[in-house]
Amino acid sequence: MRATVHVKRRSDIADPAGTAVLRGVRDLGYSNVESVRIDKIITLEVGATDPARARADIEAMCEKLLANPVMEDYEIVLEEDGDTA
Amino acid sequence: MRATVHVKRRSDIADPAGTAVLRGVRDLGYSNVESVRIDKIITLEVGATDPARARADIEAMCEKLLANPVMEDYEIVLEEDGDTA
Repeated sequence: MRATVHVKRRSDIADPAGTAVLRGVRDLGYSNVESVRIDKIITLEVGATDPARARADIEAMCEKLLANPVMEDYEIVLEEDGDTA
Repeated sequence: MRATVHVKRRSDIADPAGTAVLRGVRDLGYSNVESVRIDKIITLEVGATDPARARADIEAMCEKLLANPVMEDYEIVLEEDGDTA
């Protein structure tokens, strides 16, 4: 089964990488760009059959490793379609 | 208008960050995780009114700065809904 985890920095936390890219696109002449944020999409292929168990495992992985719970929020989407693996 | 750019490493190109995270989740005991890939979502707020022009600008930004055209593919989604800004 495939799990997609969208890891987003909280909106009140500064995003230095996004700020650097914003400066870059403005330096290229795109002065109408107002803000840039960069988030992560983590795609995991998991050999699991029980979606509830898989979700609980991935939540634990997010808290421990995939996201920084102090600064980031995350959203987990499970795809149970076996033939996408 | 808001533009979301999904930047994905091509599947035949190694993803060292994903491989490191895979090792990490296995070290945590999640041995049923088969693969991990990490992609980027770049969200831009653009002060533009013409979607065709905005898309062309963002494509140019992708080729020059937001993505690495040698190793990455990108997909642009425009949201024209003014009140999300």
